[in-house]
Amino acid sequence: MSRFARHILQGVAVAALAAGGALAQDAADYRDFFEPLPALPPIPAGTSMTQEKIDLGLMLFFEPRISASGIISCATCHNPALGWTDRIPRATGHMGQVGERNTPTVLNSGFLDAQFWDGRVPDLEGQALGPIEADVEMAMSLDEAIERLTEFDVYREAFALAFPDDDDPIRAENVAKAIASFERTLNTPNSPFDRFLRGDVRALSPEQQRGMVAFVDYGCIACHNGPALSDSNFHRFELPGSKDEGRFLVTGDENDRFAFRTPTLRNVVLTYPYFNNGSVADLRDAINLMGQQMLGQDFEDDTLDDLVAFMHALTGEMPVVAIPSLP
Amino acid sequence: MSRFARHILQGVAVAALAAGGALAQDAADYRDFFEPLPALPPIPAGTSMTQEKIDLGLMLFFEPRISASGIISCATCHNPALGWTDRIPRATGHMGQVGERNTPTVLNSGFLDAQFWDGRVPDLEGQALGPIEADVEMAMSLDEAIERLTEFDVYREAFALAFPDDDDPIRAENVAKAIASFERTLNTPNSPFDRFLRGDVRALSPEQQRGMVAFVDYGCIACHNGPALSDSNFHRFELPGSKDEGRFLVTGDENDRFAFRTPTLRNVVLTYPYFNNGSVADLRDAINLMGQQMLGQDFEDDTLDDLVAFMHALTGEMPVVAIPSLP
Repeated sequence: MSRFARHILQGVAVAALAAGGALAQDAADYRDFFEPLPALPPIPAGTSMTQEKIDLGLMLFFEPRISASGIISCATCHNPALGWTDRIPRATGHMGQVGERNTPTVLNSGFLDAQFWDGRVPDLEGQALGPIEADVEMAMSLDEAIERLTEFDVYREAFALAFPDDDDPIRAENVAKAIASFERTLNTPNSPFDRFLRGDVRALSPEQQRGMVAFVDYGCIACHNGPALSDSNFHRFELPGSKDEGRFLVTGDENDRFAFRTPTLRNVVLTYPYFNNGSVADLRDAINLMGQQMLGQDFEDDTLDDLVAFMHALTGEMPVVAIPSLP
Repeated sequence: MSRFARHILQGVAVAALAAGGALAQDAADYRDFFEPLPALPPIPAGTSMTQEKIDLGLMLFFEPRISASGIISCATCHNPALGWTDRIPRATGHMGQVGERNTPTVLNSGFLDAQFWDGRVPDLEGQALGPIEADVEMAMSLDEAIERLTEFDVYREAFALAFPDDDDPIRAENVAKAIASFERTLNTPNSPFDRFLRGDVRALSPEQQRGMVAFVDYGCIACHNGPALSDSNFHRFELPGSKDEGRFLVTGDENDRFAFRTPTLRNVVLTYPYFNNGSVADLRDAINLMGQQMLGQDFEDDTLDDLVAFMHALTGEMPVVAIPSLP
């Protein structure tokens, strides 16, 4: 457990003591429970972010010709117009097939230490190639994808620029590195919440401040902590109607049955519908269900109002991304 | 026939007389055969372009939730990253179905007086709704599309702003008007060709200038004329391997069998593959085939080189479009 996580959990314990009474404590005192979003997420060992990789990753992210149909790209499901997700319950891809799970947003995903709902890979490099190959997503083998990219002078040059020390730069590992580098630029700083944390006490409305206090006092923060408001850890959650065994399918560990990685709450009002199968469209319903399932708590209407208001404060500045010109 | 068309055809006749000899005539003298691209295309009677309509049209153009799968929008096939087309042979849409025809670019389409390969509607308003309803494209009834849009406050407001005199602004006719208004902004001025026409004689290389002269002298300009280098008219063209009867399917007129609307040549290097079924990927092959089929002419290699070079001069400045934030 990180020093930060210990600090948070001690904080939760202290706050829980206070929660029996009125939520009169000044919300400003609660700022220490949280972290404003840094400008960039950590960069894993073994790679580096360069403008050349980011530029190449941008092109690859929008490139539909590395899909079997020729019309699906990363940006189809991680749609920049829709909060870098798709706003449908479950991901829909090759030949209209519908997958098992809801598409997570790419926004701030570099701040998570576990990718996918089941956390089967730790970082964006590990994530990036999965949807290209998945039968229900882009449905193209990596060999074929590499072959297609190699046909284009523009890509041959861009890979050589992005990986100058590599004798054979157009290969799957580098596709992953470039896409991951681009994705690490897709962060949403300066939300009202971040501005509040940095000292602008008027950045949150009184309702949002009460929501922030409730978020700590009721213990939401036990899992939703850190810069992305996710612990990148796995928690059992039985969503009504879902048979998805989640993390168990990766580890085979009984303790992981029905466990899913905590999703980020940043930009949560933009990333509906919610949960592993996207079956809950309304944010208030989602919060209510979380209270019942994770905290054994039926929130009062006023508290739900406050928590919803606080969630609205988590919407940051969207990254400005120009649509690339593909070859 | 318009005064301009008469002028062109007289020009072709004069040029044809000269074409027997060497193409020594100064390319600058050929500029009168052409028209630089105006800033905006004509706006049909019964509508008007306003910023509110353009803004709404931008949102609708990128809106996948008016498709049955929830992941296909106008921008899927008319992809801004790919010259506002898809760069695959035939349009691929709902459930991965592949249509009969190649996706035309939206760029400069407001300058055409006939839309679709078969010209079944004259203007962009007529075109805009077709792909939403088409079973192989977005596959959603217009009633359902309107219902979905009506769910969003943001759309209710945007339609009211765009159609302030309309008591019932969210309706199919207005969807068409808004999308068409947006599309009329997608023009590509200031190509090297346009700069040459406006007097910058160094904007075209000598090879491109020779290509421009050959384009007139061999008669390509008989069909590829006007600001978009299309007469918006229909010409019989039997593409090897294609059984598509084209315009005949609209009119039932024997003269229209296998006739297709002349495509624009603006940005033609970006809008491969070519012809009604997209079966020709290479521009040089496409020009060669056109020479043989339409002009009864086997171009010499040098002439093909020049014509290809001239086509490269028809790429203009791409419209800068920020990806909208959808509700």
